Amino acid sequence: MKLYDLPASPNARRVRMFIAEKGLDIPKEEIDLATGYHKSPEYLKKNIMGRMPVLELDDGTTISESHAICCYLEEIYPEPPLMGQTPLERATIEMWNRRIELDLLNPILNAFVHGHPMWKGIREQVAEFVPICVNNANKSLEWLETSLEGRDYIATDTYSIADITAQCTLLMGKAVGVRPTEQQKNINSWWERVTSRPTARA
Amino acid sequence: MKLYDLPASPNARRVRMFIAEKGLDIPKEEIDLATGYHKSPEYLKKNIMGRMPVLELDDGTTISESHAICCYLEEIYPEPPLMGQTPLERATIEMWNRRIELDLLNPILNAFVHGHPMWKGIREQVAEFVPICVNNANKSLEWLETSLEGRDYIATDTYSIADITAQCTLLMGKAVGVRPTEQQKNINSWWERVTSRPTARA
Repeated sequence: MKLYDLPASPNARRVRMFIAEKGLDIPKEEIDLATGYHKSPEYLKKNIMGRMPVLELDDGTTISESHAICCYLEEIYPEPPLMGQTPLERATIEMWNRRIELDLLNPILNAFVHGHPMWKGIREQVAEFVPICVNNANKSLEWLETSLEGRDYIATDTYSIADITAQCTLLMGKAVGVRPTEQQKNINSWWERVTSRPTARA
Repeated sequence: MKLYDLPASPNARRVRMFIAEKGLDIPKEEIDLATGYHKSPEYLKKNIMGRMPVLELDDGTTISESHAICCYLEEIYPEPPLMGQTPLERATIEMWNRRIELDLLNPILNAFVHGHPMWKGIREQVAEFVPICVNNANKSLEWLETSLEGRDYIATDTYSIADITAQCTLLMGKAVGVRPTEQQKNINSWWERVTSRPTARA
C-alpha cells in the first residue's frame, strides 16, 4: 500500500490523521504540484481527477476521494473503530461527517478558492462569492455549537471521522477568517480536546 | 420507520429510488415548504438543518443526510446490494458516488441556487457564479464519458448508488441547461439503461 499525498491539502490531511489514529504506517509519496506529475497520463490512470490523496494497493488498484480511502481502511483495519460499530452508529457518524463537509468545509474551501491569490488563473474566481461563503460557514458554527452542548465529540461518545473532518475544516477556516468566537464555548472545548491528541499534527 | 420527504428535492429522490430498488415500502410524510413546518422546533429536533429527507426509526431516532440514510438502509436491508459487497467494491462505489456528488451534483445545485428565481430572497445569489458552475459541470461530463467507456454502470459491473446519484444529478442538470451532448454516447447509453429501470420514477 502507498499513499499519494499532498501535505498542504486539508483532504489529504484527513486521510493522514485517519491513518495515524489507526496506528498504521503506510508509505507516502508526496506530490510536488510544480512538476505537474498529477496531470500526467501516468497519474491520471491512478485518479482521473488528477487529485490527491490516492491510495494505491499492492496490486496497483487505486482508490481516490478521501472518505472512500478511509472507508476502505476502516474495513481492512477495524481497530480502533472511527466510523462506528453498529448500523445506527455508522449512519450517525456518516450524517455528521457530511454535515461538516457540506455546510462547513465546502463554504470554507470555496472562500479559499474564490479569494486566495494561489488560485488566481487556476480557477475562475468570483470575489463577490467569498463573503457569502464566510457567512455560511459562520452560520454552520452556530449549529455546531448547539449540537456540541453536553458532548465530548461530534457524532457519538467517542472520537470519530466526523471529528477528524471538523478538525481539518477548522484548520482551513483560519486561512479565510472563519473561526469560533470566544462565546462558542462548546466548540472551543471540543477543539482543545481533539487537538491535544497525538495524531492532530499528522 | 417513516421518511420525511420533499418530492421536488433531488436528494430526497436519491433516497426514494434507493428504497424502491430495495423493494421496501416505507411510509412517507411529504413536507409542504409553504407551511414552514421544516423550520419548526418540532422538526428541527428531527434535523437541526431543517431539511429533507429524514428517516425516523420506530423509537423516534432520526437520521438525516441522504447518503447516511442509504448507508443505514443498506445494512438493515442488504438485498439487493447497492453499495458493494467487498471492502474494495464498497470503497470504489463510495469514490464514484463522491465524484458525482462533488464535481457534478454540487455545481448543478449551485447553478440552480444562484440562478433560479425560486431561491431569490432565500439565499444570496451571485449571478456571475452560474456560468462557472455550468462550465464545471460540463467538464465533469467529459470525465464521466471517458470513464463509462466499455462499462454498463458507473462504479462496478452492477447498478449501484453511484448510478442513482448520477441519475438524480442529470435530471436536475436539465433545469440549468447541463446535459450530455449527442457525441457523449457512453453517457447517453448509460442514461437509456438506467432510466428504463422501473424505479427511475420513484
